[in-house]
Amino acid sequence: MNYKTVIPLFVILFSLIQISSQTEHSKKILDKHSDTAEKIIKSSLSEMKGYEWLRDLCENIGPRLSGSEESMKAIHWAEDKFIQMGVDCVWLQPAMVPKWVRGNIENAKIVKSNKFSGRELNIASLGSSVGTPEGGITAEVIEIHSFDELEQKADKIKGKIVFFNRPFNQTFTNTFRGYGDAVNQRGSGPSKAAKLGAVAAIVRSVTSKYDNVPHVGTLFYDSSVEKIPAAAIGLIDADFLSDAIKEEPNLQIKIAMDCENFDEVLSYNVIAQINGTEFPDEIIVVGGHWDSWDKGCGAHDDGAPCIQTMEVLDIFNRLNIRPKRTIRCVLFINEENGIGGALAYADSIKNKGEYHLAAIESDRGAYTPRGFSVTADSITILGMQNWLPILNKSLIEWIRRGGSGVDISRIEGAKALIGYVPDDQRYFDVHHSDNDVFEEVHPREMQLGTSAIAILTYLLSEEGL
Amino acid sequence: MNYKTVIPLFVILFSLIQISSQTEHSKKILDKHSDTAEKIIKSSLSEMKGYEWLRDLCENIGPRLSGSEESMKAIHWAEDKFIQMGVDCVWLQPAMVPKWVRGNIENAKIVKSNKFSGRELNIASLGSSVGTPEGGITAEVIEIHSFDELEQKADKIKGKIVFFNRPFNQTFTNTFRGYGDAVNQRGSGPSKAAKLGAVAAIVRSVTSKYDNVPHVGTLFYDSSVEKIPAAAIGLIDADFLSDAIKEEPNLQIKIAMDCENFDEVLSYNVIAQINGTEFPDEIIVVGGHWDSWDKGCGAHDDGAPCIQTMEVLDIFNRLNIRPKRTIRCVLFINEENGIGGALAYADSIKNKGEYHLAAIESDRGAYTPRGFSVTADSITILGMQNWLPILNKSLIEWIRRGGSGVDISRIEGAKALIGYVPDDQRYFDVHHSDNDVFEEVHPREMQLGTSAIAILTYLLSEEGL
Repeated sequence: MNYKTVIPLFVILFSLIQISSQTEHSKKILDKHSDTAEKIIKSSLSEMKGYEWLRDLCENIGPRLSGSEESMKAIHWAEDKFIQMGVDCVWLQPAMVPKWVRGNIENAKIVKSNKFSGRELNIASLGSSVGTPEGGITAEVIEIHSFDELEQKADKIKGKIVFFNRPFNQTFTNTFRGYGDAVNQRGSGPSKAAKLGAVAAIVRSVTSKYDNVPHVGTLFYDSSVEKIPAAAIGLIDADFLSDAIKEEPNLQIKIAMDCENFDEVLSYNVIAQINGTEFPDEIIVVGGHWDSWDKGCGAHDDGAPCIQTMEVLDIFNRLNIRPKRTIRCVLFINEENGIGGALAYADSIKNKGEYHLAAIESDRGAYTPRGFSVTADSITILGMQNWLPILNKSLIEWIRRGGSGVDISRIEGAKALIGYVPDDQRYFDVHHSDNDVFEEVHPREMQLGTSAIAILTYLLSEEGL
Repeated sequence: MNYKTVIPLFVILFSLIQISSQTEHSKKILDKHSDTAEKIIKSSLSEMKGYEWLRDLCENIGPRLSGSEESMKAIHWAEDKFIQMGVDCVWLQPAMVPKWVRGNIENAKIVKSNKFSGRELNIASLGSSVGTPEGGITAEVIEIHSFDELEQKADKIKGKIVFFNRPFNQTFTNTFRGYGDAVNQRGSGPSKAAKLGAVAAIVRSVTSKYDNVPHVGTLFYDSSVEKIPAAAIGLIDADFLSDAIKEEPNLQIKIAMDCENFDEVLSYNVIAQINGTEFPDEIIVVGGHWDSWDKGCGAHDDGAPCIQTMEVLDIFNRLNIRPKRTIRCVLFINEENGIGGALAYADSIKNKGEYHLAAIESDRGAYTPRGFSVTADSITILGMQNWLPILNKSLIEWIRRGGSGVDISRIEGAKALIGYVPDDQRYFDVHHSDNDVFEEVHPREMQLGTSAIAILTYLLSEEGL
């Protein structure tokens, strides 16, 4: 053997020792924590506690748009639940949030058409939209599929209602990609149209389900141009409208909306905590956003996922798990149309100099568990992957590098920011719409997710990072 | 270095070479077949062809119990679909199947009770059950949770209606385990009760969903004892009945059923095939069972999964994939209450001396893909695991040793028998009941499954085993 063969041999040996020590480490952790993981799953699936909380939330409070009366009811509802759990402390953290109110009028119909006059279109004002003048806006419609096309037709936009009709791309396996591919027409489409003189915008609902339910969400006005009213339209009516203007390019639509933006109001994050026994200053956050859109009841977005993280604390209590590190559940207010809650939380931890070991966000629906998406350095992610044999008991298949979540992304200095990733095939069927109701949440799928998040929280607390 | 260090070093080196050559092999396959896999997924998700076939099947034919008129309609419907596809050959393979008819009468109500007389119970006759005498059977009820308890109460059974009320265990993460844990009370409970002198049996529906819909399925009579009538009861009424007999142990139930067993009838497997270009004598089967129970429309069990395997052939055709090996879709008749179709197929391949490289069965619903369960030797399974990076594109996370499926398990000599495993959380909510309808099948989930099965079929055909 000369040095030419010895060096690669050392590299090989070193790699192998790494792999084998990782496997060994993984096995030790499995032996140590399997029982607790199984107890967590059994407790979650048999008690169905979170699922029953969700039923209560949906039946007795409903949707919880930031700044609304219902959002305040929900905040106190969650505060009460935490107090009943008997956790170590519960508090409300002030945050300023926008107040937008849908109002009573939102309708659109075809006028000045030989064939279609009087045909109503199923629309819903987009969040943050201004209303129309009293009596509505009547104008011709121009259909647009991309911002490139908008630029190409720049000279034809003035005085028109721009109808953004780019469909949700169903060919991506990950529906978040389909959503991402179409959602900019909702977010920045209205102001881009206004810049070219449009008087209003109608946006094809960004949804994977073919029905006539409008899916809302916020728009972002460009402050340099006039704010024009904008609404989402159901898919069936979007296709109808597209066909109608092909047949009669000069037909007009009358659209009326009385939604309105008010001054910011005071609201709150709801926070509850179990203090760590050994490392109380190392905080592990679990949470989601407690506000929702004002459609359906925000069951998947983000009621059930928030409740999953609330139940983590309850599971620790009822199984008598005293965590080594501090477990804190944060229900952030105002993710949907601002990030008032996330900013307030980030400010507070900076002011207090609190150290966060990790944070887990649940904001992708409450379907069957698939994985965890982690923002961290490679060594940390590799270390967490040792936990897969335990997490797999709750149907977690993978831990991968990736984004975490809007609300926790503001937390500075954490070793890992983690997004819980359930199956996503049905999420955009219901997202931001009247379809997002309690009946769409499956009890076992939700409770399996709860157990996945609880097991990861437990492992973070026991093993550190 | 002495021999004591050299030997382990060789073992280590050999393992490492194995791992690295496996990774290398996996990468080569990925490079070679990625494009085709992506085309398959895109075609499946954009065309939604199988989903539309399922709509047609459910709306125009409905459930397809072996021996029924509807089953024959469905057989010709599938035959026509294959002919329209323009595959290389299509044929019907004769198989004898039982003929059981539910009849028009199936009801139960409480009689001779102070408080509950006249209260009806929602029941459905179990498959293969005999009917009651005209006028029904009236008797006291005894509740039983296990066969041990039945033995312990042996002296109290005579003349009674035995009410098997063991619940579906929700604490297993895999719902097939929950089903397996409770289903023997349906299969062999009635005859065990009859042996002790029971006059009829009522069985708690084996389902994960809490509603009042009875879930049926077959029972197996022990030929040495008298056949007594048996029916499934909805969960709400099962709990009601359990409470009622605690309050009034001597209340009676009157149960009436006119279901009936007839002589076996002739039916058919539907078979279609694309001939292999290089190894036409190596057959790869894809399929499911074309019969269903007579409740709902057998959408998840096993309509959609069968159609997934039918569409594999259509995808090959429309993407112009000429497989190296022969791809054969087999829609087996009579899995639900016999295995007439599976036996006929197994006989035919033995008689013709046909060699099957592999078979894939789809019979666990049409939910989001999770994995493939494989009956094969370890080397074959390891080899297939090299394909995971490609299969993962359609959301397949794993390939594991395990059972395949009832119908293909009769195929002798195949190198791999493979069960397609989608998410199972919702399956037993609908299984064998009026809940199993078209609307419960999600278009994207079904079509992702189709693409997973098509990609695996393609890899088996191109790479062999």
